[in-house]
Amino acid sequence: MRNRLTDLLGIAYPIVQAPMGWIARSKLASAVSNAGGMGIIETSSGQLEDVRAEIRKMRELTDKPFGVNIAQAFVRDPDIVSFVIDQGVRFVTTSAGDPKRYCSALKEAGLTVFHVVPSLKAALRALEAGVDGLVVEGGEGGGFKNPREVASMVLLPLVCSRTDKPVIAAGGMVDGRSMAAAFALGAEGIQMGTRMVSAQESPVHENWKQAIVAAEETDTVFLNRFGPGPALRALRTTRTTTLEKEPADNIMGEFRNILDLYFGGDLEAAIPLTGQVAGRIDEIKPVAQIITETVRECEQILDRLARAYPVH
Amino acid sequence: MRNRLTDLLGIAYPIVQAPMGWIARSKLASAVSNAGGMGIIETSSGQLEDVRAEIRKMRELTDKPFGVNIAQAFVRDPDIVSFVIDQGVRFVTTSAGDPKRYCSALKEAGLTVFHVVPSLKAALRALEAGVDGLVVEGGEGGGFKNPREVASMVLLPLVCSRTDKPVIAAGGMVDGRSMAAAFALGAEGIQMGTRMVSAQESPVHENWKQAIVAAEETDTVFLNRFGPGPALRALRTTRTTTLEKEPADNIMGEFRNILDLYFGGDLEAAIPLTGQVAGRIDEIKPVAQIITETVRECEQILDRLARAYPVH
Repeated sequence: MRNRLTDLLGIAYPIVQAPMGWIARSKLASAVSNAGGMGIIETSSGQLEDVRAEIRKMRELTDKPFGVNIAQAFVRDPDIVSFVIDQGVRFVTTSAGDPKRYCSALKEAGLTVFHVVPSLKAALRALEAGVDGLVVEGGEGGGFKNPREVASMVLLPLVCSRTDKPVIAAGGMVDGRSMAAAFALGAEGIQMGTRMVSAQESPVHENWKQAIVAAEETDTVFLNRFGPGPALRALRTTRTTTLEKEPADNIMGEFRNILDLYFGGDLEAAIPLTGQVAGRIDEIKPVAQIITETVRECEQILDRLARAYPVH
Repeated sequence: MRNRLTDLLGIAYPIVQAPMGWIARSKLASAVSNAGGMGIIETSSGQLEDVRAEIRKMRELTDKPFGVNIAQAFVRDPDIVSFVIDQGVRFVTTSAGDPKRYCSALKEAGLTVFHVVPSLKAALRALEAGVDGLVVEGGEGGGFKNPREVASMVLLPLVCSRTDKPVIAAGGMVDGRSMAAAFALGAEGIQMGTRMVSAQESPVHENWKQAIVAAEETDTVFLNRFGPGPALRALRTTRTTTLEKEPADNIMGEFRNILDLYFGGDLEAAIPLTGQVAGRIDEIKPVAQIITETVRECEQILDRLARAYPVH
């Protein structure tokens, strides 16, 4: 499967793994890169020393391209740019901040830079900053979100109608059907978050993976729409159901014990960031299977649709 | 453009107009039917006498098929079923209530019955009731909604994976891109609400149409998630922005002066039910143009994608 995105990033399949804090480390990211997708190392955990070690580890685990996400609101270390450049990373996504902040420095060093955007306004700002492409993030996705969330079905074609740069669809992406839909809406790649959290190579506790498998499509909540701090989408638990009705004074405080949730398996210890696609995940699969099934299904759907609905 | 839905309903294009209360009357619905789509007469206004007159009027305005929506929570007249049957209507969508309530009687009279569903659970219940197909309603759409709303990108493929009956996608549907995406996700038809509200033949006041044209994709609010009464998606106005933070004790009371909004043009008089696609509507177009552009664009996109991504 070839398009502008695979050519630009030097990957076999235009499937990018989302940069989940703590989770998007070398074990998962190398599995994605080795399967022909784009593995990404996160920085939103803020644990820069660990992240540096993970980036180094990627060199041992894969000889395929991988990227780094710079989550600007969470990484205040000005050295992050030179560190990423020094590590020889060729692809960076920037998010949660002003797209102008790092774009020039990264591009001058020859890196490919995509900015993550939750609205048309943000997309236009990023394009003005000179990014090479966009990750367009629909509100159905898990994680930190724009408080005025917009579904991929609306946001993605809107942004694509305003730019010729390649666009990666995030939010709702889980298989070949959603990939084909994203392509119909104008994207040339997809980013999977919750699907990768639940993958066999994901480092999270089995309890969380099983909770994703068990979840129905209605089992997420959208929290903290009115701030202060970021809004977010998470799995419905006792804690998050309470937070939905009685917002926390400081939402970030709810992440204090996140490691007990992510790696200790206590789903009530913090907030399990999860997208609506949890309702479409029935099985824990190896990353390579996820990627090859997605690509094959996408191609088959597009072929079948073109035959069923010929141009008149 | 032919598929099971066009064959089943006897229409040229698998595009259905949503049954907006007060708005889905003969002027708009006949324009849709005459353009080859499926015009629908509403009952959610509760004004059954007017609705009966509108159904009769349809016979003068079109010789093409049209349908009626029975919004069960709003129409408590037990005669509605025999009235619809007596009028010779061949297609009915039922919504906002138990799918078993009218399904048998309508089907025994030879009508085709689709039920509107906002979740997989509701879909399975409707299939059990024996419906001929489903309208699957994503949370990005305008109007009354399930309080736990799910985006079309997730809900549509989930429901389609569990049934072989034809599915009509609602929520986010506005053009050929969204139609192609809906087909990729498993639908065989689309339902347009906000796009039809803003159409030239729509009876609503010019102020509301212009507000839809002016709206950005982030300019809707989701209200009344915790009840009592139905949740809903509406255009962001001063009134609805207040209601977003300070829920009404009785949300239906906010519709008291709805006619002053819909037909008087006072956008603050009540709640303007509107979907996120308002952000993708830049122009007031005649219904026939909307339908032919949508179909042509959909076919062209599917053709282009199949060429760009051949099966390997």
